[in-house]
Amino acid sequence: MDDETEAAVMAATSRALCEHGYADLTMQRIADEWDKSKAALHYHYDTKEELLESFLDWTIARFDSRLACEAADPRERLDTFVEALFGPAEESDGSFAIALLAMKAQAPHSETYRDRLAEVDARMRETLAETIRDGIEAGQFREVDPEDTARFAATAINGSHVRRVALDERPAEARRLFEQYLDATLGREQAPEVPV
Amino acid sequence: MDDETEAAVMAATSRALCEHGYADLTMQRIADEWDKSKAALHYHYDTKEELLESFLDWTIARFDSRLACEAADPRERLDTFVEALFGPAEESDGSFAIALLAMKAQAPHSETYRDRLAEVDARMRETLAETIRDGIEAGQFREVDPEDTARFAATAINGSHVRRVALDERPAEARRLFEQYLDATLGREQAPEVPV
Repeated sequence: MDDETEAAVMAATSRALCEHGYADLTMQRIADEWDKSKAALHYHYDTKEELLESFLDWTIARFDSRLACEAADPRERLDTFVEALFGPAEESDGSFAIALLAMKAQAPHSETYRDRLAEVDARMRETLAETIRDGIEAGQFREVDPEDTARFAATAINGSHVRRVALDERPAEARRLFEQYLDATLGREQAPEVPV
Repeated sequence: MDDETEAAVMAATSRALCEHGYADLTMQRIADEWDKSKAALHYHYDTKEELLESFLDWTIARFDSRLACEAADPRERLDTFVEALFGPAEESDGSFAIALLAMKAQAPHSETYRDRLAEVDARMRETLAETIRDGIEAGQFREVDPEDTARFAATAINGSHVRRVALDERPAEARRLFEQYLDATLGREQAPEVPV
């Protein structure tokens, strides 16, 4: 399958998942979103499960490419990280957020989903912990535990995701609170005030 | 329906949701978990949708009763709150966590779920904001914005929930990081160290 076809099928899967939910997702509905026949879809993917595993792989690759940042400066890398997770690209793609939460809710019933989601999570936490570690070494951030801070930040990111899907909370609001947290924890933007 | 029957049906629904997932949940499977016939289940609930709405109402009531705390001391109320969300009662009930995430993932497809989930969230945030406000007035907590802090804390709680279900992360680990966050933000346990 060429890249263009794959991207079209993945976008169709995301839209179909968003519109019908995981419970009512069928190969026919994905084919309809793709504007091709169900037979054409089965030519590329034997089963719905196989297609959804590819969808999760595609999600991971997409996420990786957005997190990749070559900047040497830890502060700049942290800004890129926040932008990748809460910026306009993420804001516009509500259907992707809905599709991803559907996969997370299914994780207890699928070892494949669990493994893939654990992989995405580990990569997100490692990216963040490394940035924090470098920032501490460079004297830009306060001396926190990089792994604990990365795990709690990942928890807040996961929470923002579920709030967006289940409560329709705006990513901009989540971003404001997340940046407040980073500032308070790492002293990211200004010198912290001395508590009285 | 008497209380005992309702509790048995709700527990059966939670187990069936946990075992089969939302996508493969049927009235037959819930009846099997309840050890009664499908006809007996339909006597109480016309449709699966009606049963699942009741399940969400029951969830809210259960959650409310655990959050209710009559203590006057804000610090004590905060401890009760953390215990209700991360304590042994919550730790033991993995199937409930899975069932609740399934409902959250379905929220974009059901106005009823969205409304109920928004209600639970508002109640959780109000409980927390009020406790923080009282603690600041009593001079126990640092002067933070109570609403912002409550919303970010709720986000972290939502994140811990999704990590438990999708990544199998232990509630005890989530609790440790959540308490660290509260201590750093509110100065809950000891006077904060003065940053250099």
